[in-house]
Amino acid sequence: VSLHGEIMEQPSVARRLLERGREPIAAMARALRERPIDYLVIAARGSSDHAAIYAQYLFGVRHRLPVALAAPSIRSLYGVEPRFERALVIGISQSGASPDVVGIVQAARGQGAPTIAVTNDASSPLAEAAEFVLEVQAGAERSIAATKTYTAQLLGLALLSAALLDDPQDERAIDALPDALATALDVDAAARQVALRQATMTRCIVLGRGFEYATAREWALKLKELTAVVADPYSAADFQHGPIALVEPGFPVLAVVPSGAAAEDLLALLARLRAEQGADVLAISDLPDTLGLGEALLPSPAGVPEWLQPIVTIVPAQLHAYHLTLARGRDPEAPRNLSKVTLTR
Amino acid sequence: VSLHGEIMEQPSVARRLLERGREPIAAMARALRERPIDYLVIAARGSSDHAAIYAQYLFGVRHRLPVALAAPSIRSLYGVEPRFERALVIGISQSGASPDVVGIVQAARGQGAPTIAVTNDASSPLAEAAEFVLEVQAGAERSIAATKTYTAQLLGLALLSAALLDDPQDERAIDALPDALATALDVDAAARQVALRQATMTRCIVLGRGFEYATAREWALKLKELTAVVADPYSAADFQHGPIALVEPGFPVLAVVPSGAAAEDLLALLARLRAEQGADVLAISDLPDTLGLGEALLPSPAGVPEWLQPIVTIVPAQLHAYHLTLARGRDPEAPRNLSKVTLTR
Repeated sequence: VSLHGEIMEQPSVARRLLERGREPIAAMARALRERPIDYLVIAARGSSDHAAIYAQYLFGVRHRLPVALAAPSIRSLYGVEPRFERALVIGISQSGASPDVVGIVQAARGQGAPTIAVTNDASSPLAEAAEFVLEVQAGAERSIAATKTYTAQLLGLALLSAALLDDPQDERAIDALPDALATALDVDAAARQVALRQATMTRCIVLGRGFEYATAREWALKLKELTAVVADPYSAADFQHGPIALVEPGFPVLAVVPSGAAAEDLLALLARLRAEQGADVLAISDLPDTLGLGEALLPSPAGVPEWLQPIVTIVPAQLHAYHLTLARGRDPEAPRNLSKVTLTR
Repeated sequence: VSLHGEIMEQPSVARRLLERGREPIAAMARALRERPIDYLVIAARGSSDHAAIYAQYLFGVRHRLPVALAAPSIRSLYGVEPRFERALVIGISQSGASPDVVGIVQAARGQGAPTIAVTNDASSPLAEAAEFVLEVQAGAERSIAATKTYTAQLLGLALLSAALLDDPQDERAIDALPDALATALDVDAAARQVALRQATMTRCIVLGRGFEYATAREWALKLKELTAVVADPYSAADFQHGPIALVEPGFPVLAVVPSGAAAEDLLALLARLRAEQGADVLAISDLPDTLGLGEALLPSPAGVPEWLQPIVTIVPAQLHAYHLTLARGRDPEAPRNLSKVTLTR
């Protein structure tokens, strides 16, 4: 199994999680409703941290819950155990092995806070530490760069949100995701063409906003770990508070522009970056080509509600990063200096 | 007044804040002790967001309080008002004008949560929106790149933490900061020499850990807005979950390595990056030169406790960014595409 194979597996991984995960997640939601929860704390590293950013918008927008992304080093470096009074504490880790993430969940459970492990390994230390386990059922992931486990983490979190709200319309939207993921894969050839043109790129900005800030972060990480392009991700708002100064004529700006609340501002910013600063824009979007980007638009499937879009918009980004890896003469199975499981304190 | 002048002003700005700020901040702390607070929510953009990251460690390590960095677009884009039950909500903004930050504080105050405006303008919309105002008293900041207002924000937050804990040892450590800031400025000529050697740099990684993650973020932002170097900041832990793949022989790695709990891991990582991946390391540190960096070590003042170090370690970083701006033939007073006050929704 190769990285490309694991990217292609994502529709069937989603189908499996929908089949096997709904029951246990519904049971978890019933149990959580009995607990006093004022806010969420999420501990995660790497791609899983981008699933945490998705959760920040998911539970913020749909449940009005503030979400704190834990700084695990407060415990691991400084030996201080935060107070988790009235918090729901979630650890997200593909392997479930990272000691810093496990440590936060252990501490929270010791204080009696409800805890969830979102992991691909139901017998991992993280799964053992948590009161509840949300197993993402993605099957073994062999490539070092996370792809199918990332979309499975997002889908697992979306299922939890839907189970907590219990709205049949949400369930129907989620049921349509495996087909949308299959459609998203159709961009493979177009992503390869774009990558061939970008083979000499050394740096770029990646923009997203709202729900799609998570996708911008994850796209940038794929580019860094696989292609060694220095890809700096920003929310469109933070970008205007300083880093916009980077963009000179020809500077590559990658953007995730879904339809929905975030579209208007981001489209206006991209148009300005092109017209006034000469940015070289590549976008992933389900919108018709309002920017006139032509081949520099990688389409994502239409009809996916905004809160679920990050589950499908990352697919063109994964394919883009994969093809750029090849175009730059690198091995997608062997990114430099990395191993599959990183054990940070 | 120039950017360099404002950097040099920082000892006197700190002295003024200590003189004028202690009383009102002590009164604020007394009032806050009467309120039920389980966690913090902080809204900020740009450099102020890095003050928020400092606060995440400050209140996490010293007060055991989880800190959520607000995603203001949950309110501004999606029209959803988070519930701020049992939260202390802090907005940080130099100008106090950014509508998205003001919006979060307004919403929280409307719900009856305690709110603080950390701002340089006590008559700004942010100051008006908040129940409490922590005026950082930095004087008018004319340069577009924030320097003295950033260190003043950090010092203001440190004063609040000290007032809440009421430990005379803390007060003594804070009293020593203006002199430490003056010592930090001595690095000016050395920073210029380093900058001259790095004039052709186009990209780099900036590493910090724990309290100094804030400094890594702020250093990277100064480089981006002033020098147009793509500077990608990471905590040393997150860096090992992917981006470490970027480092090839000669790749510039900038690091903030204070003495204290974070030092050991970060020094080991830097030694490995140099020996195995050929990284070109530049460090800011108060440690003796254990890495044998020679002129690529910018010293920060010794004797500052770890929780206060970010207030002084940013100074060599500011000077480095300033001199690199000149070395690259750019105007430090006129970064491209930026204005002093950025009004994001």
